[in-house]
Amino acid sequence: MKKGGSIPDEFAHSILSAQRASMMLGVELIEFEEGSASLALKMRDELQQQHQFIHGGILAYLADCALSFAAGSVLGDCITVEFKINYLRPAKGEGRLLARGKVLGHGRTTATVRAEIFVEREDGARELCAAAQGTLQRV
Amino acid sequence: MKKGGSIPDEFAHSILSAQRASMMLGVELIEFEEGSASLALKMRDELQQQHQFIHGGILAYLADCALSFAAGSVLGDCITVEFKINYLRPAKGEGRLLARGKVLGHGRTTATVRAEIFVEREDGARELCAAAQGTLQRV
Amino acid sequence: MKKGGSIPDEFAHSILSAQRASMMLGVELIEFEEGSASLALKMRDELQQQHQFIHGGILAYLADCALSFAAGSVLGDCITVEFKINYLRPAKGEGRLLARGKVLGHGRTTATVRAEIFVEREDGARELCAAAQGTLQRV
Amino acid sequence: MKKGGSIPDEFAHSILSAQRASMMLGVELIEFEEGSASLALKMRDELQQQHQFIHGGILAYLADCALSFAAGSVLGDCITVEFKINYLRPAKGEGRLLARGKVLGHGRTTATVRAEIFVEREDGARELCAAAQGTLQRV
Repeated sequence: MKKGGSIPDEFAHSILSAQRASMMLGVELIEFEEGSASLALKMRDELQQQHQFIHGGILAYLADCALSFAAGSVLGDCITVEFKINYLRPAKGEGRLLARGKVLGHGRTTATVRAEIFVEREDGARELCAAAQGTLQRV
Repeated sequence: MKKGGSIPDEFAHSILSAQRASMMLGVELIEFEEGSASLALKMRDELQQQHQFIHGGILAYLADCALSFAAGSVLGDCITVEFKINYLRPAKGEGRLLARGKVLGHGRTTATVRAEIFVEREDGARELCAAAQGTLQRV
Repeated sequence: MKKGGSIPDEFAHSILSAQRASMMLGVELIEFEEGSASLALKMRDELQQQHQFIHGGILAYLADCALSFAAGSVLGDCITVEFKINYLRPAKGEGRLLARGKVLGHGRTTATVRAEIFVEREDGARELCAAAQGTLQRV
Repeated sequence: MKKGGSIPDEFAHSILSAQRASMMLGVELIEFEEGSASLALKMRDELQQQHQFIHGGILAYLADCALSFAAGSVLGDCITVEFKINYLRPAKGEGRLLARGKVLGHGRTTATVRAEIFVEREDGARELCAAAQGTLQRV
């Protein structure tokens, strides 16, 4: 994992480990830098909806993680105030979901963040599946 | 469960049953009427984030279900184009999450839908935890 | 105009009057109660886009007003943190736009608010044209 | 103005000129390329709210323009289905608003687009004031 900013990587890992829902789903922290964070989730059958695509709610879950860990890199422990997500194409087949959050701007207590969720194949090829934007607040 | 409109309840139940992610999480269909749908999810430890609140991503998942089943009651099988969610208070303690989607308007292929997510206690008391709004499209 | 709550009507009127953009566009305050507010804007040619519908940006402007005045009824002077708007049908023909904001929940400094924008005809008939949801913050 | 893609610049200019609301407000088309578009609006007193900042509704208007012209560069004539906007800092002082829309992805009839709205000073310095994301549809 890449090195973080003033908020240490260990902090981010401890938050993720304390999220029982993220552990159950299998969310992994890939990158945690000042102003951005990336998380991954292996695609598997039990994350699907009725068309064998990854359920939009799972993509929303991962978007929320990417937004909040990116915000957390500048705010520390924080919660999501709101976000929106647009779905661009179905996430299906083999590979993993890769969600990258990036802080657009922040003050002392809140941050505005964007995230993109990609399907990443074994060979490293990526396709954009969803895009999110939201507001996070320091706890 | 209350009776549905022109799209039969059986259809809605078969869609939900075919969503492996919803089955894994334990999402239940409570109501399916023309223009609205309600779904429930029992709150439990493995759905929590680091403050022992239900993870915002789980609330987003359930919001997506409420939006898409409400839309499905007028469109039939459909997918989420986009939605946004605002978090009003943490979902914590004992009870279940209750998400109700309501169609604001629709054409032949798309619907605009709102949803509210409540925490519902054993005694039936409800508190609004999150509110969502989005666009759904017939498959 | 209907009577307001703890925040007086006079306050709301003075805010609107101090908004030069709202005065230029012709926005009127119709109702200001604790937890809700309604504003109106007469439809006219100079608010149109290329299809002779009222420009979506004008509907967004009015939605922002409805959200912020509804929030203002519980928070006092406030600014918009974020909002989203869904367009349901074109606003066209004769009549006025009527936007009603309603507070879903609020704390001491922020409020979550929804708004609906209707076209209202001379005979009082109303059609829903757009729906908005957002976050407002006390200044 | 920079050269456009398969949709000619003339088309974009004719659309903007046919938007009476955009003409009234003074919106200018700065750039129109395949997949992106930039528009500008000179800041002036009559676009302000009660704190002498540019009204959030005006920023939303300009965001809608940036989203729809960017989408228009790949779809042709189109309308906004929905969008959301986050406000990062007040737009105030001298200069102009610069809104740049960029297509994230599109099919034959719809596009997902992001926009950023900057305050641009006389010396070319820019500050990000708002960020938007939305869905556009070909007419």
